[in-house]
Amino acid sequence: MNPHISEQYDAELDATRNQLMEMGGMVEKQLRDASDALIGQDAVLAETVILADKRVNQLEVEIDEQCVNIIARRQPAASDLRTLISILKASTDLERVGDEAGRVAKMAISLAESGISADEFNDFRHIANLTQEMVASSLDAFARLDTEGAMRVIASDAAVDDAYDELVRQRSLRMREDPDAIQRDMSVIWAARALERIGDHAKNICEYVVYLVRGQDLRQRNKKSPS
Amino acid sequence: MNPHISEQYDAELDATRNQLMEMGGMVEKQLRDASDALIGQDAVLAETVILADKRVNQLEVEIDEQCVNIIARRQPAASDLRTLISILKASTDLERVGDEAGRVAKMAISLAESGISADEFNDFRHIANLTQEMVASSLDAFARLDTEGAMRVIASDAAVDDAYDELVRQRSLRMREDPDAIQRDMSVIWAARALERIGDHAKNICEYVVYLVRGQDLRQRNKKSPS
Repeated sequence: MNPHISEQYDAELDATRNQLMEMGGMVEKQLRDASDALIGQDAVLAETVILADKRVNQLEVEIDEQCVNIIARRQPAASDLRTLISILKASTDLERVGDEAGRVAKMAISLAESGISADEFNDFRHIANLTQEMVASSLDAFARLDTEGAMRVIASDAAVDDAYDELVRQRSLRMREDPDAIQRDMSVIWAARALERIGDHAKNICEYVVYLVRGQDLRQRNKKSPS
Repeated sequence: MNPHISEQYDAELDATRNQLMEMGGMVEKQLRDASDALIGQDAVLAETVILADKRVNQLEVEIDEQCVNIIARRQPAASDLRTLISILKASTDLERVGDEAGRVAKMAISLAESGISADEFNDFRHIANLTQEMVASSLDAFARLDTEGAMRVIASDAAVDDAYDELVRQRSLRMREDPDAIQRDMSVIWAARALERIGDHAKNICEYVVYLVRGQDLRQRNKKSPS
């Protein structure tokens, strides 16, 4: 390949990777804001999360188009092709993280002004911290093609699942004792469910990293049965 | 292109498309069996759904590898490239439909032998029928590249969302009045939630059809805010 064309090509690949990281930064912020909005019962902050989703959705479309264009024009070698396919797949997962953050924001709006003490959300905050960490680490692993980091994120998903199961158990018990709390507890359970799904998407992204680097597909080997 | 090579290439594309349809048939069966298992409180049938998920997951990996191989070896033109990218994306959605069917099956197991009359599941059955129809029609639209059919499926998702909201509302009211029903109603709500997500995946598949045929991206234009 002509070195000039090859430079252009590398620049295109880098630009696409950078855009995926930009999208990652945006959904990280959505996730953080949505969780803070729920705990702080802040409807205004929650609205910003829902508004930001438009831009995240646009970015997914732009990234996909770029990947398809690069593949069509550059006819990349197998390893670059895997990179582009991984970016295509990761952009879908990030878009779904944005959707789930939007669901948390909707629950935050339904809980707003209910005057619940922030202490009542310790179980939710714990899951929010775990999933924020998972998303951040999955983006790091993708950027640095760090399979060990990716494997750690994949392993950490079990902690999110456990924390989520415990939240559902405790809040279901409370609903039995206090029917007036049903609406509120249901909202918190929905929001926690959205976080649990976000953990799954972070895990997916890490599985693309492993697939990319090792050229093997871990996606099915690590597959837990649906929870 | 040499006509012999071109024939091989068409055969490869067809084989991949057929495998996606085979995968579609499998998740349709998972969805039907999982819903029947829940309504009929049949734990044995539910177990078969969970077992079938392994094969569905394998198929996703095989289809992805085939798409990547075809792209790498054949350097397809833009329109074939779009087809292959759409197959790659649709396989991910079908795999997630299988996961969601597995979640319904898990709820079916938790409800098994509880001796609830099938009449009590009319609300759930309604959503199950709607989503089965959506999945079947989305696969038809993909196979026949039928954008009108695809647009109908996209429009029908609102009916699933409405039916789901109504189920949650009714069952939440009942939980207030009958705390002993909380566990059961929560299980039905989880299962209905899984169906509602399956409707979203069917909609995604139809959006790839429209993208493929019209070469434009409807994904963001039709985007509802997360529910």
